[in-house]
Amino acid sequence: MPITLAGFGSYHAGGRRLTVTGAPVEPIRFTADTPPFPFDPNGEYRVEQAYGQWFEPVPRRPGAPPVVLLHGGGMTGAMWETTPDGRPGWLWQLLAAGFPVHVIDQVERGRAGFNATPEPWPGRPLTRTAQEAWSLFRIGPPAGYATRTPYPGSRFPVAGFDRLVAQFVPRWTATADAQAGALVAVLAEVDRRHGPAVLVCHSQGGAAAFRVLAARPDLLAGIVALEPSGFPDPPGLGTAAMDVPIAFVMGDFLDTDPLWSGLSRRVDEAVRRLAMRGLPAIRIDLPDLGYPGTTHMMMMEIGTDFLYEIRPFS
Amino acid sequence: MPITLAGFGSYHAGGRRLTVTGAPVEPIRFTADTPPFPFDPNGEYRVEQAYGQWFEPVPRRPGAPPVVLLHGGGMTGAMWETTPDGRPGWLWQLLAAGFPVHVIDQVERGRAGFNATPEPWPGRPLTRTAQEAWSLFRIGPPAGYATRTPYPGSRFPVAGFDRLVAQFVPRWTATADAQAGALVAVLAEVDRRHGPAVLVCHSQGGAAAFRVLAARPDLLAGIVALEPSGFPDPPGLGTAAMDVPIAFVMGDFLDTDPLWSGLSRRVDEAVRRLAMRGLPAIRIDLPDLGYPGTTHMMMMEIGTDFLYEIRPFS
Repeated sequence: MPITLAGFGSYHAGGRRLTVTGAPVEPIRFTADTPPFPFDPNGEYRVEQAYGQWFEPVPRRPGAPPVVLLHGGGMTGAMWETTPDGRPGWLWQLLAAGFPVHVIDQVERGRAGFNATPEPWPGRPLTRTAQEAWSLFRIGPPAGYATRTPYPGSRFPVAGFDRLVAQFVPRWTATADAQAGALVAVLAEVDRRHGPAVLVCHSQGGAAAFRVLAARPDLLAGIVALEPSGFPDPPGLGTAAMDVPIAFVMGDFLDTDPLWSGLSRRVDEAVRRLAMRGLPAIRIDLPDLGYPGTTHMMMMEIGTDFLYEIRPFS
Repeated sequence: MPITLAGFGSYHAGGRRLTVTGAPVEPIRFTADTPPFPFDPNGEYRVEQAYGQWFEPVPRRPGAPPVVLLHGGGMTGAMWETTPDGRPGWLWQLLAAGFPVHVIDQVERGRAGFNATPEPWPGRPLTRTAQEAWSLFRIGPPAGYATRTPYPGSRFPVAGFDRLVAQFVPRWTATADAQAGALVAVLAEVDRRHGPAVLVCHSQGGAAAFRVLAARPDLLAGIVALEPSGFPDPPGLGTAAMDVPIAFVMGDFLDTDPLWSGLSRRVDEAVRRLAMRGLPAIRIDLPDLGYPGTTHMMMMEIGTDFLYEIRPFS
C-alpha cells in the first residue's frame, strides 16, 4: 500500500560547540586528484548532537501522537527501515497507520557523527562481533552460530542475519550524559513539530529515555521500552512523570543468558517501584501475548505485530 | 505538495567480512544499569559497506532513471534532506518530480558505519572545522567567518551555517578503494531495483563516481558531478563509458581559493580529454546559467533550481 507524506526532512538537535586550539597543522590529501592541503584542526566544531529524520503522513490518524524510534547500542535508525529479510520495517508500518515518525541516530552513531576532534571522548569505540550479537540478542545458542541454527521456534529471519551485522556501528561507553542531553533536544524538536511523543526505545536506548522521563516528562506521551538496558529512577521522577504511561516489552528466551535473566528481574523491580509511586507502568512478555520465539530484535521478526496491541498503537 | 511513495527502505551494500583473533577480552558496561560484561572483540565483523536509503515515488515520471545522491567528504546523506534554512532539499524535490532516489552514506560515514575493529583502517579520522568549511566551501572570506559575512551576492543561507556544521562527520583519507568498491555494489543494488542510475556526486564523492565509470559504466545512465575533487581517467575508460553523459557543475567564486582555481583547471582538462575520446562531457558554470553567487554547497542554496536545466531532470 502506498503512503503519502505531507512532509519529510531531518535535523540535528542538541550537542555543544567545541573549540580546539594549539593542535598541529598537517598536510593531507582529500583525494588522489587533489594537491596536499594544510589540514588545520584548530577551530570550532559541533559535537554530541543527535540526528532526527522525520516523516509526516497524510492522513494523520486522528489524535495520533508522533512516534520517536530510538535504536539501541551499536545500531542506528536504519534498524527500523527494512527487516533483514527485506520486509518493510516498523517505520513504514507506523506511517501507513497514520503516525508521524521521527527516526533517531543517537550521539556518536550514524548521521549524528562522532567526536574525532583533537579533544575526543574518553575511551575508544567498540564494535559488536557477529558472534556476540548472535548470543546476546538471543538469536540462538553460541554453538548454533556457525551453522546459523537459532533457538527452536525463533522468529528471527535467520537467513538475513548477515544483513543485520552489516548495520552495526561502533559505540562508546562514556557518552551516556551526552545522549540523554541530545534526546531532550530531539524531543523538544519533535514537540515543536508534532507534539509530545511516544518514545519507542530499544535496549541501550532505554538509558537515555528514562533520563528524559525524569528531566522533561512534558515532552513525552508515553514510553514503549523494548528490552531496555536502562531503567527509571522512581525517586527522581516528578509528578508530571505520572502522566506518562510506560510499557516494558520483553521477548522470549530470557533464561538462556545471565545478562537477560538479570535485566528481566530489573524490569520487574522497575514496574513495582513505579507502581508504588502511582506511575502507570506495565510489563508485557511477548510469549504471553501470543508471540513466542521473539528475541531481542523483536522489531525485525516474523509475524510480530504486537505493537498494535499496545496503546496508543492499538 | 504531498508526495506518495510506493515503497521505501534501506540496505547496506558491498564491504567485506573481517575476522579478528588474538585480541584481549575486556570488561565493559553497556549502560550504568548493566553489570560488567566481558567484551570479546574476537570474531567476525562486516566492514567497508555503504548504506543506501531508497524512495520510490508514484507516479514515477515516464522513463525517469533512478537518481543516486552521493555526498562529499565529511558529509552524509543528510545533506540532501533539509537545507540549513529549513527548506525541503533535493531529495524531496526529486521525489516530487517523480524520480526514484537512493541517498547514500559512503563507507565510514553515517549509517554505513566505520571500522573500529582491532584491525582498523590506517590513519585517523579527521573532522572539518567550521572555519575550514567557511572558506573551503567558498561561503565567504576567512575574515568574514566571525561575523558570518559571506561573499557579496552569496546564495548560501548564512543564518543556517551552524546547522550545516552540525552535519559534519569525521572522514579518513585512506578509504578511497573501499568507497569505490562499495559504490559499485550500491549501483548494482540500484540497478536491480530501479535500473541504471544518474549519479549525482558532490566534491570528494566524485573520486568514487569516476572509478565506477571505468569499472561498471553499464550501471550508469549519467553522472552529474557537482564540483568534484576526483576526475575520470580517460585512457582507463572502455567503450561502454561513451554512452554515459557527464556534466561537471561549478559554482561561483572559484578564483577566491587556490584549491578551487586548480580544480577548475582540472575540470577543463577532463572535459577536453573526454571529448577527444568521444565521451559526452560538458562543463556548466552556474553563473553563466543565471545562478551567480553559488558556492560549493550549491544544493542547499536559495533559488538554485539549476538541476532542472540538466538532462535528464529538465
